Amino acid sequence: MTFNELRKDYLLNRWVVIATARSRRPTDFARQPTQQAKSKNCPMCPGNEHMTPPAVLVYLKTKNGIRKTHDVENSRHKDWLIRVVPNLYPALCPPQAKPDIAENKDRNLLPGVGHHEVLIESPIHDENPAVARPPQLVHVINAYIDRLRELAAQPYVRYVSIFRNHGLEAGASMSHAHSQIIATPLVPTIPQEEMDSAKRFWKQKRKCIFCDIIEKESKGPRLVLKNSKFAAFAPFASVNPMEFWVFPRTHQTSLLQMQENEVKTFAETLKDCLSRLKCLVNDPPYNYGFHLTTDKESSDWYHWHLEVYPRLAIWAGFEKSTGMYINTMTPETAAESLRKARS
Amino acid sequence: MTFNELRKDYLLNRWVVIATARSRRPTDFARQPTQQAKSKNCPMCPGNEHMTPPAVLVYLKTKNGIRKTHDVENSRHKDWLIRVVPNLYPALCPPQAKPDIAENKDRNLLPGVGHHEVLIESPIHDENPAVARPPQLVHVINAYIDRLRELAAQPYVRYVSIFRNHGLEAGASMSHAHSQIIATPLVPTIPQEEMDSAKRFWKQKRKCIFCDIIEKESKGPRLVLKNSKFAAFAPFASVNPMEFWVFPRTHQTSLLQMQENEVKTFAETLKDCLSRLKCLVNDPPYNYGFHLTTDKESSDWYHWHLEVYPRLAIWAGFEKSTGMYINTMTPETAAESLRKARS
Repeated sequence: MTFNELRKDYLLNRWVVIATARSRRPTDFARQPTQQAKSKNCPMCPGNEHMTPPAVLVYLKTKNGIRKTHDVENSRHKDWLIRVVPNLYPALCPPQAKPDIAENKDRNLLPGVGHHEVLIESPIHDENPAVARPPQLVHVINAYIDRLRELAAQPYVRYVSIFRNHGLEAGASMSHAHSQIIATPLVPTIPQEEMDSAKRFWKQKRKCIFCDIIEKESKGPRLVLKNSKFAAFAPFASVNPMEFWVFPRTHQTSLLQMQENEVKTFAETLKDCLSRLKCLVNDPPYNYGFHLTTDKESSDWYHWHLEVYPRLAIWAGFEKSTGMYINTMTPETAAESLRKARS
Repeated sequence: MTFNELRKDYLLNRWVVIATARSRRPTDFARQPTQQAKSKNCPMCPGNEHMTPPAVLVYLKTKNGIRKTHDVENSRHKDWLIRVVPNLYPALCPPQAKPDIAENKDRNLLPGVGHHEVLIESPIHDENPAVARPPQLVHVINAYIDRLRELAAQPYVRYVSIFRNHGLEAGASMSHAHSQIIATPLVPTIPQEEMDSAKRFWKQKRKCIFCDIIEKESKGPRLVLKNSKFAAFAPFASVNPMEFWVFPRTHQTSLLQMQENEVKTFAETLKDCLSRLKCLVNDPPYNYGFHLTTDKESSDWYHWHLEVYPRLAIWAGFEKSTGMYINTMTPETAAESLRKARS
């Protein structure tokens, strides 16, 4: 029994062909598994702090709890729990001088100003979210929040993208557990299109479209798990096999609105979901990215969430040239598998 | 000297960060090269015709030139130059009965009707366009045209995507030289957005925006090559290192408008470009896809072209969650390298 259907995303003008027959196709390519190097020379491991720029944020453990600080030039804190350092190979850099917006007459061109940071999630090389000690994962989320608050306040920043690449095939060049943060001088296409679409819905119905979606998906066949604070589900028009999204069940526009107990529950929810994925598909490469806004104007209609994209397929000529996707697994099957998986 | 700039596509609301510093970043992952299997059991090689469904189009060599035919059930032509067969693992399938459009009340859902075909480009396993004999590549282009004409005429087809995946990392599951054709029941996002944008330009200025772009890029630093009929250049906001696009220099909306001598020149141009890429970067994986329309209404403002995407980088959490891209090579550098490369 195979299945062919075209589905459109809740908000984006993005279509996916759900085509289950394609999952059975053979290959004549032989492939070696990716090997991970040992951490002896890992610039993110303790003892190698001199290999990174000074940290802009360090969490240190003290008798009285966590002390938040930063490194000073030519000196690095050693006994840390979390470090956030500028990316040595940045996509975007802070402006050298005040950027002269008036000078920029070309609508197709902007100076590459912003920030690009690496968030080292643990002193332990392999402590990624699927296996992390819960208190350590709480530190990770808190560090996301701290950096989001600071970067979003910069006058030249319009959006802050917090994301994670797990495994070489998912674009992680280093195997030490880390996330990245890129602050951009414009709102990128996907969150902007989501905001525009959510705004139109709100103007018509005076309610948040995401709140509607969460309520509906919390009861249906695409639910992965829910608890008092969060719901995780496979989206109706998933573009990746095993894709799932995690939403706060109450209306919040960004991570900045989370209470302390919500941060703890979010860390537990994230670990639960990612460890299910790890058990089910043998620790697959994946990407995740937060969708959020810190723009007050959008606070009525935008609702933050995390999107997790397992890399179990390759987007090829069709996807790249058309912007339409092929997914060989229904989100209903994905959700059922994830519900049944051991976490 | 590094370079950071945000650039927007000519027509799409798609931004790329050009960030040359990132090209130097190290990795601690070790990786084995992909191995290609031998062709003994290749279902696309001569002698294995029984392993595929009957061909919908076969080119046979005769004393009087090419004879175009098809296979009949339970019998396959053996001595072919080109075969086009239905994909055994189709993304979309022809409708079993007349699709009842009226029944489809959900705007987010469409039946998965269409076509998905595999175009076997040569009896010779490795005869891909970068190394093909010119007359064989002319057969490939002619077969694209024949299938485009037939599929675009189906009442339930709104778009025909013709594309090629080269190498496992580019999503090719079989190593025999082949292209694919997917006919969809709606116009996909990227060509639709291009058409909308080109239409707006035409309504304002009564000229084709692509003709303008071609004229400008044919004189500038992003030109790869041009001849009497075609121009190839690295687009201003390339999202992939070494990306290039090939356009007919006269206004044509689809491959169906090419004359016989233009097909020959296009085959030569394509081979020239792809062999430069192969020499320059050691036969990298790539995808290519045609952008075209057979919709008469768009004929004034749409202009067909081929987009070639080398896979020299991985789109990760940032790209997937934001729709914004990072490219570590300027298109000006890419074009200069491709101009200088041996073809």
